[in-house]
Amino acid sequence: MKSADDYRVPGFLANGIHTGIKTDGGRDLALIFSTRSATAAGVFTTNCFKAAPVLLDQERIRAGVAQAVIANSGVANAATGPEGIADALAVSRAASTELGIVDQRVLVASTGVIGHRLPVRKIEAGVKELVAGLHADGIPDAEAGIMTTDRFPKIACRKRAIGGKEVTLCGIAKGAGMIQPNMATMLAFVMTDAAVERDALDRLFRQSIAGSFNAISVDGCMSTNDTALILANGFAGNPSIKRGSRNAARFGEILAELLSSLARELVRDGEGATKVIEIAITEAKTRRDAQRIAYAVANSNLVKTAFFGEDPNWGRIISAAGSLGIDLPADRVCLFLEDIPIFAAGKGIGGREEELAGIMKRPEIRVRLGLGMGCRSWTVCTSDLTFDYVKINAHYHT
Amino acid sequence: MKSADDYRVPGFLANGIHTGIKTDGGRDLALIFSTRSATAAGVFTTNCFKAAPVLLDQERIRAGVAQAVIANSGVANAATGPEGIADALAVSRAASTELGIVDQRVLVASTGVIGHRLPVRKIEAGVKELVAGLHADGIPDAEAGIMTTDRFPKIACRKRAIGGKEVTLCGIAKGAGMIQPNMATMLAFVMTDAAVERDALDRLFRQSIAGSFNAISVDGCMSTNDTALILANGFAGNPSIKRGSRNAARFGEILAELLSSLARELVRDGEGATKVIEIAITEAKTRRDAQRIAYAVANSNLVKTAFFGEDPNWGRIISAAGSLGIDLPADRVCLFLEDIPIFAAGKGIGGREEELAGIMKRPEIRVRLGLGMGCRSWTVCTSDLTFDYVKINAHYHT
Repeated sequence: MKSADDYRVPGFLANGIHTGIKTDGGRDLALIFSTRSATAAGVFTTNCFKAAPVLLDQERIRAGVAQAVIANSGVANAATGPEGIADALAVSRAASTELGIVDQRVLVASTGVIGHRLPVRKIEAGVKELVAGLHADGIPDAEAGIMTTDRFPKIACRKRAIGGKEVTLCGIAKGAGMIQPNMATMLAFVMTDAAVERDALDRLFRQSIAGSFNAISVDGCMSTNDTALILANGFAGNPSIKRGSRNAARFGEILAELLSSLARELVRDGEGATKVIEIAITEAKTRRDAQRIAYAVANSNLVKTAFFGEDPNWGRIISAAGSLGIDLPADRVCLFLEDIPIFAAGKGIGGREEELAGIMKRPEIRVRLGLGMGCRSWTVCTSDLTFDYVKINAHYHT
Repeated sequence: MKSADDYRVPGFLANGIHTGIKTDGGRDLALIFSTRSATAAGVFTTNCFKAAPVLLDQERIRAGVAQAVIANSGVANAATGPEGIADALAVSRAASTELGIVDQRVLVASTGVIGHRLPVRKIEAGVKELVAGLHADGIPDAEAGIMTTDRFPKIACRKRAIGGKEVTLCGIAKGAGMIQPNMATMLAFVMTDAAVERDALDRLFRQSIAGSFNAISVDGCMSTNDTALILANGFAGNPSIKRGSRNAARFGEILAELLSSLARELVRDGEGATKVIEIAITEAKTRRDAQRIAYAVANSNLVKTAFFGEDPNWGRIISAAGSLGIDLPADRVCLFLEDIPIFAAGKGIGGREEELAGIMKRPEIRVRLGLGMGCRSWTVCTSDLTFDYVKINAHYHT
């Protein structure tokens, strides 16, 4: 276990409390606060039915500065019309008033059931306690406040030197996925004490998300509420990172590593998941082709149930890959389970069934499909489809 | 129950026997035979990894004539390379020799596990018995011979007057879906005694499939083996139906009705399904938009598990519809469960929860999503996602 110390980011305080939105007594309201104004960037769902907090944040994030994030679990405040926007504004105002900061510097997020109004009174009543309890070791409490069907918290931190100073990045996440995936809403908040210029932060955050949260898949669904935010408050004292600089590349690498680690945890915690499966599509003509095929395989219920059944049913993998209208050369395509070739020259390769059966029992499995068409590739992490997935999602209350 | 008489088509004989491919003793080899050469058309999977029988049929169907269809269940003869083609040819030759017809007039089909070689010796050994047992009431036996995970046979017949003569159409099908769907392979064979010109038959068959088998979805997967064939032998004595004629329109209507009825049965028998859900997307700008949205909703695991859980979770429906990058006017979109509006003007409409709960318990449910953008529409039938789907597909043997 990590000590709370590992989850500290200079200049950031956090907290998470129970206000009564969740009926099980769990924490349902989280706050992240930077003691000084921070550079900020955000990436949001591309769903047409964006939740009220997403619409509000998209407006506010344009300024590129923020100081607090208040997020609730239990109710998504999505499909709630103009009243939903008013509710999100009321929550923001409650937080900014109690914190004594400009309201425009508060970002909001919600996750939970779609179509229900936010219980604003409960949240307003809780904000005093929420702010009073802010503390430097509060990041795990904030994480608890945004969890819904998550079975375990997802927190990751990195400390590295940039420009002669030690910088800290710490991220929390809930749900399972974004853009492609999202069985539940994905929320991710990253705090860093690095000093980063606004446009550099925006660009690096988008790039890192493309290779992490956008490269995982649990059930191919996209939520109305997916929100990823980053706040960089500059407490580390490094020379402010500029777009295109060597330090920007360095910061981007650390950020990508942090987000990938959180993304992998999201897949591992995919609703009902028992396995993490890495699907690599290589030798594609275009990256777009590789992505489309990777998602088709990763989202195929037949592929996902085969992994749950621990059955090396490679026919389902090539069948999914071949179903998109992308003209694949059936005789040049090669399929590997870990390093074992199982399909090539248009047919299956037998003889190593025992080894394959052993691999299928592992909790993490790598699949590679070489298309023999070019040199672009894409990798997606997915989970298996299990009885528990059906159970959780058939009975999740609306 | 229908009597065997209802499943007779003049000039057609059929049979289905057990040859030992299936280990449970069930029928696994089917034969349909027209006592004279018939006009023929076929529609096949667009998967890049087409099974050997599909490749062979695509070649042979160009001639537009056929006299027999031999099909096996248990092994798909897919991903079997050049040897698979040789195996399919051997099966065809065994049938044509025993029937005493030109080999080119035999069409073949297979369904079952991908990647295994066809047990040609067993099939060859069975062909004598298969041909000897051909009879006018053999259509249900042929249907039994192509079934795999199907829980019940799918047979539909229609008798109508065309050009002053009574014509009969009879179709058998197995599996669940085509192009979009296909959890298992879809095979469908239609026999008719109508006289139909080659190009008219081809066109009408394609059109009817677009509105039937291509408008259902069980899990969004597409098989390597999907095959739909029609043979028209002209025994009815009607004036041969010409493309674009009034009789062609009439025949097309009957064919569409027949295939839609079979398609609906396929959904009802979707692996583990407990419900049939009709998803209608209306008021779309283009038909393509309506189709894409209909399939996104129909294939969403979150939507499908909600129906299994009998939970009117409309948030999942609009979330799936909004996730495609098609720019929907969130405030003009209306969602109906049967005739009850449940979402409009960007938010949910409450107050009829009891009625909704009652509708969700029905075995057949209609959902309509009006986009408020235009006048094109598309309807897809889908099934719910259940524990049994996972069970069947996690344990189906490779």
